[in-house]
Amino acid sequence: MSKIPVIIDVDTGIDDAMALVLALQADKLDIRGITTVAGNQTIEKTTRNTLDVVEYFGRSEIPVAMGAKQPLIRPQVIAAYAHGESGLGTAVLPKAEKMPDELDAVSFIKKVLEESEEQITLVPTGPLTNIAILLKAYPHIKNKIKEIVLMGGGAFGGNYNAAAEFNIYADPEAAQIVFNSGVKLVMCGLDVTLKATVTPEDIDTIRAIGNKAGDFIAEAVEFYMAMYKRNPNFTGCAIHDAVTITYLIAPELIKTRQGIARVDIDGRDSYAATICDFRPWRDREKDNALVCVDIDREAFVKLLVEACKNY
Amino acid sequence: MSKIPVIIDVDTGIDDAMALVLALQADKLDIRGITTVAGNQTIEKTTRNTLDVVEYFGRSEIPVAMGAKQPLIRPQVIAAYAHGESGLGTAVLPKAEKMPDELDAVSFIKKVLEESEEQITLVPTGPLTNIAILLKAYPHIKNKIKEIVLMGGGAFGGNYNAAAEFNIYADPEAAQIVFNSGVKLVMCGLDVTLKATVTPEDIDTIRAIGNKAGDFIAEAVEFYMAMYKRNPNFTGCAIHDAVTITYLIAPELIKTRQGIARVDIDGRDSYAATICDFRPWRDREKDNALVCVDIDREAFVKLLVEACKNY
Amino acid sequence: MSKIPVIIDVDTGIDDAMALVLALQADKLDIRGITTVAGNQTIEKTTRNTLDVVEYFGRSEIPVAMGAKQPLIRPQVIAAYAHGESGLGTAVLPKAEKMPDELDAVSFIKKVLEESEEQITLVPTGPLTNIAILLKAYPHIKNKIKEIVLMGGGAFGGNYNAAAEFNIYADPEAAQIVFNSGVKLVMCGLDVTLKATVTPEDIDTIRAIGNKAGDFIAEAVEFYMAMYKRNPNFTGCAIHDAVTITYLIAPELIKTRQGIARVDIDGRDSYAATICDFRPWRDREKDNALVCVDIDREAFVKLLVEACKNY
Amino acid sequence: MSKIPVIIDVDTGIDDAMALVLALQADKLDIRGITTVAGNQTIEKTTRNTLDVVEYFGRSEIPVAMGAKQPLIRPQVIAAYAHGESGLGTAVLPKAEKMPDELDAVSFIKKVLEESEEQITLVPTGPLTNIAILLKAYPHIKNKIKEIVLMGGGAFGGNYNAAAEFNIYADPEAAQIVFNSGVKLVMCGLDVTLKATVTPEDIDTIRAIGNKAGDFIAEAVEFYMAMYKRNPNFTGCAIHDAVTITYLIAPELIKTRQGIARVDIDGRDSYAATICDFRPWRDREKDNALVCVDIDREAFVKLLVEACKNY
Repeated sequence: MSKIPVIIDVDTGIDDAMALVLALQADKLDIRGITTVAGNQTIEKTTRNTLDVVEYFGRSEIPVAMGAKQPLIRPQVIAAYAHGESGLGTAVLPKAEKMPDELDAVSFIKKVLEESEEQITLVPTGPLTNIAILLKAYPHIKNKIKEIVLMGGGAFGGNYNAAAEFNIYADPEAAQIVFNSGVKLVMCGLDVTLKATVTPEDIDTIRAIGNKAGDFIAEAVEFYMAMYKRNPNFTGCAIHDAVTITYLIAPELIKTRQGIARVDIDGRDSYAATICDFRPWRDREKDNALVCVDIDREAFVKLLVEACKNY
Repeated sequence: MSKIPVIIDVDTGIDDAMALVLALQADKLDIRGITTVAGNQTIEKTTRNTLDVVEYFGRSEIPVAMGAKQPLIRPQVIAAYAHGESGLGTAVLPKAEKMPDELDAVSFIKKVLEESEEQITLVPTGPLTNIAILLKAYPHIKNKIKEIVLMGGGAFGGNYNAAAEFNIYADPEAAQIVFNSGVKLVMCGLDVTLKATVTPEDIDTIRAIGNKAGDFIAEAVEFYMAMYKRNPNFTGCAIHDAVTITYLIAPELIKTRQGIARVDIDGRDSYAATICDFRPWRDREKDNALVCVDIDREAFVKLLVEACKNY
Repeated sequence: MSKIPVIIDVDTGIDDAMALVLALQADKLDIRGITTVAGNQTIEKTTRNTLDVVEYFGRSEIPVAMGAKQPLIRPQVIAAYAHGESGLGTAVLPKAEKMPDELDAVSFIKKVLEESEEQITLVPTGPLTNIAILLKAYPHIKNKIKEIVLMGGGAFGGNYNAAAEFNIYADPEAAQIVFNSGVKLVMCGLDVTLKATVTPEDIDTIRAIGNKAGDFIAEAVEFYMAMYKRNPNFTGCAIHDAVTITYLIAPELIKTRQGIARVDIDGRDSYAATICDFRPWRDREKDNALVCVDIDREAFVKLLVEACKNY
Repeated sequence: MSKIPVIIDVDTGIDDAMALVLALQADKLDIRGITTVAGNQTIEKTTRNTLDVVEYFGRSEIPVAMGAKQPLIRPQVIAAYAHGESGLGTAVLPKAEKMPDELDAVSFIKKVLEESEEQITLVPTGPLTNIAILLKAYPHIKNKIKEIVLMGGGAFGGNYNAAAEFNIYADPEAAQIVFNSGVKLVMCGLDVTLKATVTPEDIDTIRAIGNKAGDFIAEAVEFYMAMYKRNPNFTGCAIHDAVTITYLIAPELIKTRQGIARVDIDGRDSYAATICDFRPWRDREKDNALVCVDIDREAFVKLLVEACKNY
């Protein structure tokens, strides 16, 4: 079977790191490059973390290009509350020797797409700033994109506030541009990602592997888990970004629903909400998204554990 | 057991009529008055229909007061597509001799509340215009209101469009005033009402009763059912407004969830959405609503059938 | 000449007080009542100040009715920065014996209008909360209103922020209801009121009158003037609210422009702006406002001085 | 005196054509390129018109690069009502042999800026889509931009509707990006451009020149003038875009005012308004714009006439 060519666009981030752990060892993926964006932390930190993760897990040959420092229009928000000051909780990786690509993220993605004969899948796990700029600056490039498998949004509510998920809230206008671009979307939002949880017991299993991957994951997730534990109904913490990679390498674990997804960029209380229209009497010709709504949690955790063992 | 004193505020409407059929025969309710509002149809028609229903079912002693002709701020929308030109589909009732109360709805509710020694429950099944004006014109009256059990909104999406339910869409600012008033809310929104369905077979059962109630309901629902049948996944039609009365007389049939409900009055795509915050880490001191999320459909239908038999 | 019957709706306020000084001695006005609203200060303080001013200036026979404590929908803002903690700067009046009317403002205005054979002019100099509630609760009352001569807004910018004037910002939805009500408006906004200034020299003239009115005005304006003096281009302070009374008793001093005035209730940066359409190709059938745009400052000051002398 | 290096970004358009007539013969300008954007007409037509104008007036050596086909986020609007189906009214130019540059507008501007040792002035006379994409895709390029002298907006009202000017309305989010970019702005909005009028008599003067420039301008403006004549207070038609070039080559003709300019991207009635804060007590550190507010009309017309004579 031929591999799926992908460019992963990350704001690394604890769960981005786990998505990368899953992706970097996946036989099914042909990673053409990784680009970074400000989101969970500043662009300097998310780029630093990305370079470190890629080198630490032995994939220095994959180019990493640095992207947008700021959202398109709105003031910047970051998520230090969830990912810590460094963006990786208390985990510390050796500083990579690897440097960012000489091209910025937008130019890098453009070049890779232009040079590719096959269509490539984009996998953004942070705010959609880079992807939006790409699509507006070079609209002809769309025909080189197979689909966009993104982590963001939620058909039925948010986490940053009642209505909005963090990645979308961090750059709603960029999200709107991507959602309205005509490119096929697979939306891995809170509907599925809040079910993609790992429990403290799962982390014990991962730590017990006793290798560099297990150690790193166990350490990084600890900080993140602490935030989740403040929830009185705590059962585990959601590894949001890893769902995108799971969708690509093990789609049979995920349940989806076809519909129209749009972003509210005008409201106050529901600003940055992703409004998903599943009404049976909607105009189905406008369907633009496959919205992931459920996941086989046990199998998902097993996938993560096996990925760690592969390092 | 003492009866529950209520004022019902309706925009009659096929499902409002069914709510009234349920209410007018309910031993548990002490109906202190019925007020009307524009919504499913114009104020002239919703008032006409209300008077006719009340008299037809032998409860002419209950005063009916006419209320708001227009929403607070936005242009008027009506729902002739669901309720027909008359508001009652193809059903025709004898014109009532009964006339509206000399007081307008706001003044009427104010008077009834002021004169009551007990707190009274308000049961609005249409746009919240009357209730909002009441609360803003006479804020001291709040302590005479036990709770507001309303049909409107949806924690997880709309029917008028992807985000908004009809009653809220018809007057979002009024809804916002009511939702932020500090009065305890029970929100019977689409989350529960889309599960409160009757099937064509249920209607056959109701028609087979062979009395004035069965005949009227069967005829009125036919028009309404026709709209629902255009849905390829059709299984029945939702008797939205009757859920409010069910909540009062048979609360054991309904499952609820505590949270913060607000109305988006600023957006475009999600304008008039009811944003319900159930996040475990929300500020629970701001909880203002009991959101109904499920209903025992079979028992609900049985309740309707028994109500019809009582006429 | 017959007098003009008016109800004045105030949030007293230093410039409201000056509007009252002008009105209470004006032969041309038949003041049927004064109502209060929260705005420059809380409802308790604006009502206190209104009662005190009315009694101090010997017009205790005029009823004063207390109105809205809060805006219709948005969080409350007050203007202590301009009017001080009491609402009258450092001026101290004897506490009036007079008590507020037993009716609330809305019920009071309704009653006065219903009982009047002539149409009455409403003169709101604060947020439009009371007037909006009145118009929505009792729409039939509109035909008893001759016109609404209001202080608020600005065709060409704001004072509270770049876009919004304080009275409109304090309750934009109420303003929208009033502006869209169909009742004829005379808008005395910043376009004219920023030209209705008194200089420190003018205040010297007023103080030199040496009577109770001169003393009070001179003292009250001092606090208010201090805020204006922080402006590097200071030439005087604007007596906004007194322009409404001037329009009624000396319309020849004021230049107006016909147009369509609406309120922005949806934006962020321009939230609460009053958008005035004077484009020659606008739909003139929608003209709803006479927008005051200029005033003969010297004559205006003379009017104030003469008013003070009359006490 | 050294020439001013500029890139002109146009949506040609009758008044864009006149701006080009003024610019293409101006000794003071060093035109490094011209880029096109959809606006007055579709991108195909504005590019066609631009190529034709540039070749017709003998400046085929200037590269013309084609830019954005669609606004960033909102649905497209065009101004055929003002500029006709072709975009040049009834004027017909010979089809240019010249072809668009191989680079798209954004890449072209980026390249020219990067290769320039001096800072370059950008002169956009249409929607700000290209400029916004450039600034977001390549933020480091800002230090190569001297200033942006744009036609758009209006401190005191609009033309497309009461609040919004056409160029800003056509892409408000792009405008917001440019206005908030930190690059120095000179805003030639309706405040000045509605005073930059030519009368039918002025056009007679231009036609009487009897050369290719006079003939073209006289013909093109006729269509445009016809729209203006529907205004009962007609005195002439505004040559909006030519004000930008006038500001560069004859700044002494224009009066400006320093302030903070922002774009409303959230409202309904005032959506796309440019809010200009000139309040003396504003935070002057946020001043980002020189807003042109007046022009010496006679001298402006003379400038146009002399420009035509130069061909």
